[in-house]
Amino acid sequence: MTDSHAFLSAARDLLGDRGLATDPELVEPWLTDWRGRYTGRALALASPASAEEVAALVKLCAEHRVPIVPQGGNSGMSGGATPDESGNAIVLSLRRMNEVRSFEADAREIICDAGLILQTLHETVAAEGLRFPLTLGGKGSATIGGLISTNAGGTQVLRHGSMRAQVLGLEAVLADGSIFDALTPLKKDNRGFDLKQLLIGSEGTLGIVTGATLRLLPALAERAVLWAGLGDIRDARKLLLHAQARAGDALEGFEIMPRHSLSAVLNHTPGARAPLQGEHEWNALMELAADAGGAEALPDLAQNLLESAFEAGLVEDATIAANERQAEEFWTLRDEIAPAERALGPAMQHDISVPVAKMADFVAEAVPKVEREFPGTKAIGFGHLGDGNVHFHVLAPKGATPGEWEKTDGKIISKFVHDEVTRWGGSISAEHGIGQLKRDELARLGDPVQLAVLRQVKDALDPHGLLNPGKLL
Amino acid sequence: MTDSHAFLSAARDLLGDRGLATDPELVEPWLTDWRGRYTGRALALASPASAEEVAALVKLCAEHRVPIVPQGGNSGMSGGATPDESGNAIVLSLRRMNEVRSFEADAREIICDAGLILQTLHETVAAEGLRFPLTLGGKGSATIGGLISTNAGGTQVLRHGSMRAQVLGLEAVLADGSIFDALTPLKKDNRGFDLKQLLIGSEGTLGIVTGATLRLLPALAERAVLWAGLGDIRDARKLLLHAQARAGDALEGFEIMPRHSLSAVLNHTPGARAPLQGEHEWNALMELAADAGGAEALPDLAQNLLESAFEAGLVEDATIAANERQAEEFWTLRDEIAPAERALGPAMQHDISVPVAKMADFVAEAVPKVEREFPGTKAIGFGHLGDGNVHFHVLAPKGATPGEWEKTDGKIISKFVHDEVTRWGGSISAEHGIGQLKRDELARLGDPVQLAVLRQVKDALDPHGLLNPGKLL
Repeated sequence: MTDSHAFLSAARDLLGDRGLATDPELVEPWLTDWRGRYTGRALALASPASAEEVAALVKLCAEHRVPIVPQGGNSGMSGGATPDESGNAIVLSLRRMNEVRSFEADAREIICDAGLILQTLHETVAAEGLRFPLTLGGKGSATIGGLISTNAGGTQVLRHGSMRAQVLGLEAVLADGSIFDALTPLKKDNRGFDLKQLLIGSEGTLGIVTGATLRLLPALAERAVLWAGLGDIRDARKLLLHAQARAGDALEGFEIMPRHSLSAVLNHTPGARAPLQGEHEWNALMELAADAGGAEALPDLAQNLLESAFEAGLVEDATIAANERQAEEFWTLRDEIAPAERALGPAMQHDISVPVAKMADFVAEAVPKVEREFPGTKAIGFGHLGDGNVHFHVLAPKGATPGEWEKTDGKIISKFVHDEVTRWGGSISAEHGIGQLKRDELARLGDPVQLAVLRQVKDALDPHGLLNPGKLL
Repeated sequence: MTDSHAFLSAARDLLGDRGLATDPELVEPWLTDWRGRYTGRALALASPASAEEVAALVKLCAEHRVPIVPQGGNSGMSGGATPDESGNAIVLSLRRMNEVRSFEADAREIICDAGLILQTLHETVAAEGLRFPLTLGGKGSATIGGLISTNAGGTQVLRHGSMRAQVLGLEAVLADGSIFDALTPLKKDNRGFDLKQLLIGSEGTLGIVTGATLRLLPALAERAVLWAGLGDIRDARKLLLHAQARAGDALEGFEIMPRHSLSAVLNHTPGARAPLQGEHEWNALMELAADAGGAEALPDLAQNLLESAFEAGLVEDATIAANERQAEEFWTLRDEIAPAERALGPAMQHDISVPVAKMADFVAEAVPKVEREFPGTKAIGFGHLGDGNVHFHVLAPKGATPGEWEKTDGKIISKFVHDEVTRWGGSISAEHGIGQLKRDELARLGDPVQLAVLRQVKDALDPHGLLNPGKLL
């Protein structure tokens, strides 16, 4: 008690009243993850205003052995930014660090604070005819630092890669309070192994990202959004290869969803309409996009793509969105799957990946296997076929008790799904990270050699275990 | 002595006669780097035939505390694969591991042994209408494992990135002899920080790469090679931006060279002809390329690009290679700069990078600065403007003694150049790695925080310092 008092007093000297909150009313909103699965306690909410303040605070925490839980937009899916229940830790919010530090439109680079919100970044660069090629549902709250720390994905990974591919430079505060400054973007730099890469996706366990240099692309001038109905998921795989061969880099997105998901969305979403007449076992949503250089050729490219897919017998029916409004409607059908399925009752959701080439086979085999093993359940695989990233949901049998089922049968089902995906050489966390949610499963299923290296690196860079303890490892 | 005898005997039991050479005649060719700067000694040359044999050998080395110098094609530029003079180490050659393990043309992925030679990879995938988008001068000897361990670059980094961007999966043997197996390519995988990334570019100091999964692209169907004469290097920067805006992803290469370099090549290379009439202070070589989808549009794109560059006043003169033979001739002018300059006498060569946006300014300022500081020298910057990667050569004054000058004045000049590039936020090793050659300079100029982290990670993963000692750190 005395100790924490001394620490808090020193922290207040450092950060001022605006930078340190201990009032429970101010702290409490940041102690629960946004899915509401985890609630913790904390000594204080620290909100430093600069990398230097973060560094000084981390140094102070190291002296007092106070654990630190870094937090960006608090929109993570795995409880990675929520403290544990001990109340020993501080939550270190990056939200006050939300400035663009420099923006060179010519060079297509922007340097920004870690607390900058993704949507603000989008708007800032759009004003100069550029775009940042990563987006996701939580863009209104997700911060650049959080996106880097979790190596976020989204709907454009197929063409542009995940957050790792967007990071040209990085600034972070390490466990001893030193500032790791690699903000200067060098396209070629072989001075030893790349420490930036280590911090990306480390969920705040190796360092606290305070700033980043990000790559930008020319704004899109034109897009074509296509919808196809298919008889078999394996045809979706063939359609993907066909689209890649025909459209090359113009292919920005390739999503699939089964009949069940589309029905659920149509029932659940006011005003939603099916793009095609008749029902199909599978639906594929494709987006082709081009900047000014390729805009003119895009409509023909889309038309030819669909016609040749028909001729090759890959699709049962297909259409191209007639205008931007309809394009948005097609994407809404995709985006509403999760809420629509949720409205059907309790479900276990799995954010998994397998090799791209195997995803169709995986879904085709795993769905009936799960339903056979757990009678009454309904299994659904949908999502980013082009990335091998399956959202694999298992709906509870009728009559299951919400809140209860997830902790009992649901848990067993998740282990079964994770066992399956591991058997296929896949990942139990494609996009959302490990956090608290999957820590035990990673320990259970992770490759022992890889886990040992993770642990060695963690111990080397954070010997007192103060950076986001209880997450990932 | 007894110790090394016991070790060698156990190693021979493990690897057989084919896998272990101690005969000086057999070992000697691998004790000198190909530039001839470093010669070392070794207990033996070990050539395991599988990852399992590498693992068993590394375990044996760990028990006997025998250092290991991994070696691929022995074509590195920084002495990173050459043992020191103590004779305590073994050279571990990956050359016997040179098989393609699996090749899925549909999925555009290939899994191969680390000892596979780059050119063999090119030929293997070309037979299926694909290409591996990384190439460099040493492709006839460079191995996949060496390219990964040094994060090699080459002439296609502008569009396709360095070796890091080509690696989808990795297998390596760690210092304790365990096999790190991350060969399965997952486009999305967020199970903790990405250890693959740590091994890429680590120069054999953290692990020995034994296999990799690589990405492939559709074969090129068409290319257009352009040559432009410019009055000022800053116009080259503007031309690059112009070409990126016009040609987008079709721009595969953008190289620049000063008048002096072109003259040297024309004098030195039999049959070489200048692409343009008249002399220009600067020359830019651009390559536009397209697969089958974009082939038809490419000639017009190239033509429009040059015409608009003329209109914008960016180029003094320009031409497009009329056919593939002439395209090759243009590239030969670029590739012959290094030998042509070498024929002029002793020179210090620097493989450096600065932020892409600053390279033109850097060359414009650093060249006169060096020549002023070291009277009689001639400084030349040329290379990959699109990557911010400058080959910065400083030619000795007339009358300098070859072999002597490099060790005296040359050394001072190199320090001066490295100081300059560091002041510009650049890297003293853009492509070639640190090895032995730049170890002291990295220690002198590297950021102390980054050096400390490199050291911490190294100590954690290789506590006895047996993996490629004396390199990098």
